[in-house]
Amino acid sequence: MRMIDIIEKKRDNKKLSQKEIEFFVKGVADGSIPDYQTSALLMAICLNGMDDEETLYLTQAMAASGDQIDLSPIPGIKVDKHSTGGVGDKTTLILGPIVAACGVPVAKMSGRGLGHTGGTIDKLESIPGFKSGLSREEFINSVKEIGIAVAGQTENLVPADKKLYALRDVTGTVRSIPLIAASIMSKKLASGADAIVLDVKVGSGAFMKTVDEARRLARAMVDIGKGAGRKTVAIITDMDKPLGKAIGNALEVREAIEVLAGRGPEDITEICLTLAGKMLELAGKGDFDTCKSLALQAIGDRSALGKLKEMIKNQGGIPDVVHDFSLLPKAVHTKEYLSPDTGYLASMTSDVLGVASMLLGAGRANKESSIDHAAGIVLLKKPGDRVEKNEPLMILHANQSSFFDAAIRQIEGAVEISQDKPKMPPLILDIIE
Amino acid sequence: MRMIDIIEKKRDNKKLSQKEIEFFVKGVADGSIPDYQTSALLMAICLNGMDDEETLYLTQAMAASGDQIDLSPIPGIKVDKHSTGGVGDKTTLILGPIVAACGVPVAKMSGRGLGHTGGTIDKLESIPGFKSGLSREEFINSVKEIGIAVAGQTENLVPADKKLYALRDVTGTVRSIPLIAASIMSKKLASGADAIVLDVKVGSGAFMKTVDEARRLARAMVDIGKGAGRKTVAIITDMDKPLGKAIGNALEVREAIEVLAGRGPEDITEICLTLAGKMLELAGKGDFDTCKSLALQAIGDRSALGKLKEMIKNQGGIPDVVHDFSLLPKAVHTKEYLSPDTGYLASMTSDVLGVASMLLGAGRANKESSIDHAAGIVLLKKPGDRVEKNEPLMILHANQSSFFDAAIRQIEGAVEISQDKPKMPPLILDIIE
Repeated sequence: MRMIDIIEKKRDNKKLSQKEIEFFVKGVADGSIPDYQTSALLMAICLNGMDDEETLYLTQAMAASGDQIDLSPIPGIKVDKHSTGGVGDKTTLILGPIVAACGVPVAKMSGRGLGHTGGTIDKLESIPGFKSGLSREEFINSVKEIGIAVAGQTENLVPADKKLYALRDVTGTVRSIPLIAASIMSKKLASGADAIVLDVKVGSGAFMKTVDEARRLARAMVDIGKGAGRKTVAIITDMDKPLGKAIGNALEVREAIEVLAGRGPEDITEICLTLAGKMLELAGKGDFDTCKSLALQAIGDRSALGKLKEMIKNQGGIPDVVHDFSLLPKAVHTKEYLSPDTGYLASMTSDVLGVASMLLGAGRANKESSIDHAAGIVLLKKPGDRVEKNEPLMILHANQSSFFDAAIRQIEGAVEISQDKPKMPPLILDIIE
Repeated sequence: MRMIDIIEKKRDNKKLSQKEIEFFVKGVADGSIPDYQTSALLMAICLNGMDDEETLYLTQAMAASGDQIDLSPIPGIKVDKHSTGGVGDKTTLILGPIVAACGVPVAKMSGRGLGHTGGTIDKLESIPGFKSGLSREEFINSVKEIGIAVAGQTENLVPADKKLYALRDVTGTVRSIPLIAASIMSKKLASGADAIVLDVKVGSGAFMKTVDEARRLARAMVDIGKGAGRKTVAIITDMDKPLGKAIGNALEVREAIEVLAGRGPEDITEICLTLAGKMLELAGKGDFDTCKSLALQAIGDRSALGKLKEMIKNQGGIPDVVHDFSLLPKAVHTKEYLSPDTGYLASMTSDVLGVASMLLGAGRANKESSIDHAAGIVLLKKPGDRVEKNEPLMILHANQSSFFDAAIRQIEGAVEISQDKPKMPPLILDIIE
């Protein structure tokens, strides 16, 4: 088999066979296919597409390119969850404890973040002492003992995706539904869960700009999951406005705890109940409405918050953090951002807040940057709210006061006050299953 | 300017600006753009195309990537000619002397061949003593003094094309009309002629398989030529059967001399008169019919043959070769290939004869191979001819008798005898101007 023939086949808009796709992925992983051939094929896929079968084969071949986690020693149906990214998205911190509290094992591998704010692992590491680098045994045993563990991804999880993504990033081949779907789902398949709930974000700041695009990505991922024998559901959610009020690692941990304590912002609580309901449904805990009630109950009776505390303790962190926020890192400086006018807060897009948050120190500009767990933004008003001139819209947190200026310049361009009450889209736009 | 933005623009089927195309070509030539980005853009061009303006900018940027020959010291309109390749194509050897004999200066840069047989330079070098490595001064002075010179291309002629072609060859991006047109025409523009006649071959063994495809390539090249201020004409010719009867370097020189002496095969004589007529017309020697008569006259009065002799002498070769073929290298072994049946010779495709010829030693399998100037094939029958069983169809020439078997196996699969007289397409299929 020759790579040039595979490239020409896709260039001519023909369907690749499973063997051809496996040859390609293996060659990418072991370095035997040169980058210039890989990028030519990626562009041909980008422009001519892949059908459902090709996309499934690609995903499976990628999943098989490195470690594949075997969760079978853990009894029960293991449900995983993935979000296509979003500013201030702390759902994993909330969902894990809720689902585990309802008796469904949560064996969650998570990544660090690049860009606006940290990933789930970065957020958890803002809890003093928390350890995410678990061995495979520690990970499995934790889930068996207390029903939940959140660990960093092993280095060798889907190495083919690491190489492909690095190349896609510099060759204009990121925007391709089959390639995006295969990249996400290969990691889900390799992580070993029996069922998968996907949260596909849509909005100007999200990867998918329109509901239609998001639906197509969701459909592709659900088909891959089902094709690979995993129950899979996707929920399409709006991310034109940030989820909750906190952006930044420790600030988001605090907000997650508040949601679990039953006093969190309405939007994030609602989305978490829906996602948790779907996860419990896939785990066989009843129909969706029943499952959503179970999730709500786990918040109401504090069992979910207790599960978070148990997990933090089990992974070396200070468990009292769930009652005492002063144990979390706190920024030295804070600064209010005031409303420029009276009216309704019409827009305050997530991506701009994400960039501002990174400028305050909460995210990584590149792989080598370090993260300031204390930095970030807490919103006091959300789009749709009535505001008075000079009323504070948000509070910026930073450990260096010199960071405020650049962050404020970002925000100034993005905050819009209108005289008419703006129409807000629903939080949950569609469910694909 | 960033390469990634240029790739994404073409991926999204948008038109690239002249500045973007120049940035790309410069980056390819100086190595600042990595191959994986170049190949992604090449695939996007392959699938989304380029319009006339983009193709012109690409060609001009490529032509400017290396040496550009200034022919202005030579008085008169300099006309260049290019053929898109063909087995047994010795037209340059014939056209140069005819056109020069009619008073139009011929300053021809030619390449060596890779594949079936040698290029024009290889063919000329089968004449003992002939020297193609002229300095720029020697080249210009030769044309000024005797009206003709044929020299090897400088190493630094369109270096961007060398790099792009090497990459296209391994990334499935060879078959793209704008890329093919830019590759050919960049070399023509850099070679400095005022007018260009193109011979676009069509047929199963040619680069362009259908007349329609050939017309599109011809149109693209003619538009580039005109856009760059050069008078340009393309002639579309059939190459399903080989041109003339000789394939192989010294054998083709001999046939070229025979055409110039007025006793060459009809097909190649006719094509050469048409191409020469067009070249003379572009040089302002009158209308096409007048010019074709001038060309015919240059054969009839032996002035063209005299010009070839003058050129050979001027470039260090033995001039008497034009009267005495025994001065040319001759193969030690010959072998007849007999007709397997009685009937009409229906097909004997050029490309198979080309491969057979290479197996006899006449071509290069790769850049490092050496060429046997004496090896090749002389056809005794051409498609359409009546043949008797066991009548010789061709004579194979080789310096090692062990080469015959492999060549004959090639030919056996390609020769077809039919009972009905086959219909032969006309030699000249269209003229694009």
